[in-house]
Amino acid sequence: MDSRIELLCRSLPAKGLDAILVSNPYNRQYLTGFKARETDLSSSAGQVLATGQGVYLFTNPILAEQAKIETSGLELVVYEREPYVAIANAARGAGVKTLGFEPDSLTAAAFRALEQAAGKDIKLIATENAVEELRVRKDPEEITLIHKAVEITDRAFVEVTTGLTEGTTEAVLAWELEKAMRELGAEALAFDMVVGAGPNAALPHAIPSGKPIKAGEPVVIDMGARYEGYCADLTRTICIGQTSEQFRRIYDIVLRAQLAAESSIQAGQTASEADAFARRVIEDAGFGAEFNHSLGHGVGLAVHEVPRIGKDSPAVLEEGMVITVEPGIYIPGWGGVRIEDTVVVRESGIEILSQAPKEVFPV
Amino acid sequence: MDSRIELLCRSLPAKGLDAILVSNPYNRQYLTGFKARETDLSSSAGQVLATGQGVYLFTNPILAEQAKIETSGLELVVYEREPYVAIANAARGAGVKTLGFEPDSLTAAAFRALEQAAGKDIKLIATENAVEELRVRKDPEEITLIHKAVEITDRAFVEVTTGLTEGTTEAVLAWELEKAMRELGAEALAFDMVVGAGPNAALPHAIPSGKPIKAGEPVVIDMGARYEGYCADLTRTICIGQTSEQFRRIYDIVLRAQLAAESSIQAGQTASEADAFARRVIEDAGFGAEFNHSLGHGVGLAVHEVPRIGKDSPAVLEEGMVITVEPGIYIPGWGGVRIEDTVVVRESGIEILSQAPKEVFPV
Repeated sequence: MDSRIELLCRSLPAKGLDAILVSNPYNRQYLTGFKARETDLSSSAGQVLATGQGVYLFTNPILAEQAKIETSGLELVVYEREPYVAIANAARGAGVKTLGFEPDSLTAAAFRALEQAAGKDIKLIATENAVEELRVRKDPEEITLIHKAVEITDRAFVEVTTGLTEGTTEAVLAWELEKAMRELGAEALAFDMVVGAGPNAALPHAIPSGKPIKAGEPVVIDMGARYEGYCADLTRTICIGQTSEQFRRIYDIVLRAQLAAESSIQAGQTASEADAFARRVIEDAGFGAEFNHSLGHGVGLAVHEVPRIGKDSPAVLEEGMVITVEPGIYIPGWGGVRIEDTVVVRESGIEILSQAPKEVFPV
Repeated sequence: MDSRIELLCRSLPAKGLDAILVSNPYNRQYLTGFKARETDLSSSAGQVLATGQGVYLFTNPILAEQAKIETSGLELVVYEREPYVAIANAARGAGVKTLGFEPDSLTAAAFRALEQAAGKDIKLIATENAVEELRVRKDPEEITLIHKAVEITDRAFVEVTTGLTEGTTEAVLAWELEKAMRELGAEALAFDMVVGAGPNAALPHAIPSGKPIKAGEPVVIDMGARYEGYCADLTRTICIGQTSEQFRRIYDIVLRAQLAAESSIQAGQTASEADAFARRVIEDAGFGAEFNHSLGHGVGLAVHEVPRIGKDSPAVLEEGMVITVEPGIYIPGWGGVRIEDTVVVRESGIEILSQAPKEVFPV
């Protein structure tokens, strides 16, 4: 934990910063182990000030006890009403002249309060991905937690889809999957689940509806558990009863694209090269325009994090990155097929964490 | 729906505004019916620009279809990447010179983008509670939805606590209550549930833990369903097996305080007067210092909204406000008791929506 903060502090001089204020909840948990979550957009559960001199966690009285239990090796500052006065005072005390902040994780009102508290003697500088850069390579403990989230997700998928019958609605199926993940140990969903049947399967982010699932139509299920803060991301496309020729054809292309990518991706490639392994298969089959999203994205404390694995992504894949591999084909009016695994990038290939079967039919 | 936007627009000139940009998700749903929710702090599901000339809803391509289905009578603008350019262009087109914004509901980065897009010809002015002021009085349709959320909450509480046995953990009880609410029709929890047993009952915001519930100790349960966006908020304190004399004494004081407030509150009083009806009972019993929070708060699309019902709250209660009445006494090391109903303020008293029993023992 401490070495994460050390790495962050070591990166500050090159950014022209004496210190950084970390307001993003995932970054906060990553650096300190403090798991509290924001209850609404405008109130922060806590912020971290990392300076060369010392590290401070600012939180409110309601969360102070939890912060004491979950963190160590930092100075806890409990404020009643004015977090930014406390933050600016601590920064001033540590001799900070240039303070980085996260413009995507502070409200305009909070930034204004920070500006006023900082006054003229502390210069505020917007940062981009200062902590996210560190989060991108997962350490073994993080991979263990992601793996656990993946296992819960896989097991829930198999338990619930086995024996699934026609007429179950998308929303009921989604709730059964959620219940199964929670009862297998997920603390929450990693993201709002997608269950789209028939034409709804053509919407990459279909919201589970009251539509009953019919035999023969594609059902796209995109689901993930959260475990100790870490996310899994799994998509499978299933079909109850007899598949159509169209279904088998599309499914086969997507599966071949996914397997092609999974057998070719390795550390040292660019994300756009990784994307191309799958995209080429789909384009060659004549469905390039129907694969209208990126191949994948990083997964960790956030379900979507850097790097993006897309056509024009310059990021270079590195050992220890955890990413998704999720090609899809979507045909408006008919439906769609997407197949997604969560995988770890290794020097000589990838380690596939997701083990949910890729056969189409629920038994 | 339209009259809400009309009321908002009519309030703008007195605030020195030609138009207002509404970014808060609850305010957005209130004004337009658009139910999409933010998936993270830094990306907006949509924003509303209300001008005297017309009303615009800005959203991204993924949510455009949902926006079309859920809204009417406004101009839908779908942007790819630059919401604030689209927003500033629409404002400029409508001749807007002074544009209000919500500083608690825009990130610092978003505000910067808005400033740049607005340029020198549109002046940005921070607003406070411009829409929340309208939300504070609920119309009959809103009260019906809150009532439905309350009924789900009450039923789940009774179903799950009936026959509750010693040894059940706080976390298992919380999950059973959540499942029951979801299966009775809740779309989500209105807030993170509190289940605190024994000493944990002394923490007003106890996170359900692996602690098994023992006979004889107080168990504070604070729970609420969300239904069509609207929240319920219910607290009951229960005890498995024989209660101690201490428990009965504290419980009796809190219940008397709650009933005193419920029989006295009516429209026309200040929120601080409402708070005093309960606080006086607890102070007279010698536990003033142990009732360390406000009597209640408004409930609606947000589980905590204006008005706050506290010692120093100047707000005047009005017909149609929905508030909580929730006195409590907390004794560190022993536990606590809180009893909370969701109620509607009426001219001549209150209408109590919560009907969960206030007897202490699960049968």
